[in-house]
Amino acid sequence: MKDFFKVVDLAKVLEYVSLFQAVETEIIHLGDTQGRILAENIIADSDLPPFSRSTMDGYAVQASSTFGSSDENPAYISIAGQIAMGESPSFSIKQGEAARISTGGMLPNGADSVIMIEHTETLNEQTIEIYKSIAPGHNVIEKGEDFLKGSLILPKGRKIRPQETGLLAAFGKEKVRVYKKPVISIISTGDEVVPVSQIPASGQIRDINSYTLSGQVKEAGGIPLTFGIVKDNYKNLSDICRKALFQSDMVLISGGSSVGARDFTIEVLTDLPDSEIIVHGISISPGKPTILARSGKKAVWGIPGHVVSAMVVFTAVVKPFIEKISGNTSWYKMPAVSAKLSRNVASAQGRTDYIRVRLAEKEGILWAEPVLGKSGLINTMVKADGLIKIGINTEGLEKGTMVEVIFQ
Amino acid sequence: MKDFFKVVDLAKVLEYVSLFQAVETEIIHLGDTQGRILAENIIADSDLPPFSRSTMDGYAVQASSTFGSSDENPAYISIAGQIAMGESPSFSIKQGEAARISTGGMLPNGADSVIMIEHTETLNEQTIEIYKSIAPGHNVIEKGEDFLKGSLILPKGRKIRPQETGLLAAFGKEKVRVYKKPVISIISTGDEVVPVSQIPASGQIRDINSYTLSGQVKEAGGIPLTFGIVKDNYKNLSDICRKALFQSDMVLISGGSSVGARDFTIEVLTDLPDSEIIVHGISISPGKPTILARSGKKAVWGIPGHVVSAMVVFTAVVKPFIEKISGNTSWYKMPAVSAKLSRNVASAQGRTDYIRVRLAEKEGILWAEPVLGKSGLINTMVKADGLIKIGINTEGLEKGTMVEVIFQ
Repeated sequence: MKDFFKVVDLAKVLEYVSLFQAVETEIIHLGDTQGRILAENIIADSDLPPFSRSTMDGYAVQASSTFGSSDENPAYISIAGQIAMGESPSFSIKQGEAARISTGGMLPNGADSVIMIEHTETLNEQTIEIYKSIAPGHNVIEKGEDFLKGSLILPKGRKIRPQETGLLAAFGKEKVRVYKKPVISIISTGDEVVPVSQIPASGQIRDINSYTLSGQVKEAGGIPLTFGIVKDNYKNLSDICRKALFQSDMVLISGGSSVGARDFTIEVLTDLPDSEIIVHGISISPGKPTILARSGKKAVWGIPGHVVSAMVVFTAVVKPFIEKISGNTSWYKMPAVSAKLSRNVASAQGRTDYIRVRLAEKEGILWAEPVLGKSGLINTMVKADGLIKIGINTEGLEKGTMVEVIFQ
Repeated sequence: MKDFFKVVDLAKVLEYVSLFQAVETEIIHLGDTQGRILAENIIADSDLPPFSRSTMDGYAVQASSTFGSSDENPAYISIAGQIAMGESPSFSIKQGEAARISTGGMLPNGADSVIMIEHTETLNEQTIEIYKSIAPGHNVIEKGEDFLKGSLILPKGRKIRPQETGLLAAFGKEKVRVYKKPVISIISTGDEVVPVSQIPASGQIRDINSYTLSGQVKEAGGIPLTFGIVKDNYKNLSDICRKALFQSDMVLISGGSSVGARDFTIEVLTDLPDSEIIVHGISISPGKPTILARSGKKAVWGIPGHVVSAMVVFTAVVKPFIEKISGNTSWYKMPAVSAKLSRNVASAQGRTDYIRVRLAEKEGILWAEPVLGKSGLINTMVKADGLIKIGINTEGLEKGTMVEVIFQ
């Protein structure tokens, strides 16, 4: 058997993310930050909350005024005033005094705690009875308890979830510096591939990979830029590839998995300006004939044409590179769901296998059921909920093994 | 202690999703389908693939021509032609014949399998040697093997991932009917709350919930429509609430967790056209003082003002309702990550507790570390990766218990 290329381990390939740098940054509106990657450290310019607040409806008091009080032995406290929401109280609280306060209200000077209204009884307009002894700080969020002025509240490289947006809102950050979304070019190749709008003639099929890869790029936080279908020849592919490099931050070329096509893809990539073939073949299945090249500071990928192989290579290999150039410093994290394997799965040693699985709950146990089928069949990806990875030194997994299911 | 409201179990509240119906549908472009919910059954109007295809580079043959061949005893086969990619072969293959074919190429009539080029040797222009015996169907994806004409390829109610988009592309579905994204109104209340653009005076804080809830609505597949901050009085809230109901498919009112505010929120909701208070208090923590009302066919929520409570209520209670009206028939599915609890956690029986946790891997084990803190502190949500749920009949969880971590 002819040795077409020298395969590299997946772990080694992922080390090459260090060759690529984050894209430029931009300033956006707070309302648009969802899912974006922060490109600046955010420092608290004030305490949060800026004043001590009540977390309950009740009376602001000095805790010591309540010491020893109980149902049998209530404390008698005089009303010093009422605190309006959103206003700074104009009076102080002394020993033996209380002020009516609502949830979120500002504690008056002198008060250090709030007794819930349920633990009090109104005697008359000037006096309440208190039935419980409370400690200082009870039912209060102290000034600066959430964040102290001067502290780092969010670090550069953090992905912005709803709570991070809320935190930026709390500090009045209406404009935020984030990394731009990287633009990822997608090129489909293959003389048999026709656009979706076309009815395929005999021997032709419609372009699937432009759509699956665009979707995966969006999920990974990038902006897909599709170049349609390029016929299998050096000149066409080279021209489009240079155009794509100019217009985007990374290029994905799918297809060209036949030997001849692979040969001229390699030729095109080798001839790009300031280029280098970094990887030609990865020890994963499906997805072995994957190419990683560099042109200038940008990555250019040749990924297999089979729809399943292309999707698996994207998830396992390409996505970490997109996350790296997105400025996301937590790119290596991938939440996985644990499930029990429903049948034995074979795997060859010396390569990392990705198996499509469907999740099914039976009697309270979550099972991962392998979805078998050729890597050219998209129905297997549609039936699957995720992928399991079988490590390079594992010969296979037995039924009942706990596996980690990753999602695309 | 005064009984302010009668709390309902979480499971009971979730049954009320059946009261609400999916929003209208619309037709969108294939390229915009990512994350949308399909509103039609998609039936295959042709076989996929529409012809038998090779999955390898090699020679299309009748498998029987290879029977008995081996390295020691090769079969001699005549070349009947070459198959160009994307074209229908003009010739047939008979016993003892072969045609050169590339990955993805169309099998000629008569051929039933493909022998890899690596298992052949070219003798001359007319003849090859074959060193391996293969079975019919070897290295071939049969016509219709992915999907047969007339079969249901995607059901109504399915969420569209990259692979579903790819499948729609394969069948040339350039336009797809999906459910509209539900528009969710967000109203913040509280006399102490000021817009993000404003520097809070003493006693005031900025509006966080409009931002956290908008982010959560986006993640749940909805479109947030924010109405800003409404001062704590009946008239203002009632006016805005009616406007919001008119402009959207669901209304979220955050804040009003103080007794007085809760009272007039209930009053406003009771007075809405064709209205009904369905739930007033849910046995979850945080988030107990949550209100679910109905006005006409739309849900109106009163959710607590504390940022953590509001986010938890959204994830645990509101989100399933948004998924229901989105037409998503798999709305009850929530992927969870298994982890080991790093410390004991107490919980009261008779309520469902949601505990914020941070995930940390130590020596190959994934730990869920509780992030403790008051429900008014947003830093606890920023530190957390997800939530764990402690069931209504559980008194607490011991360190080392396996827990399911859900994400917002």
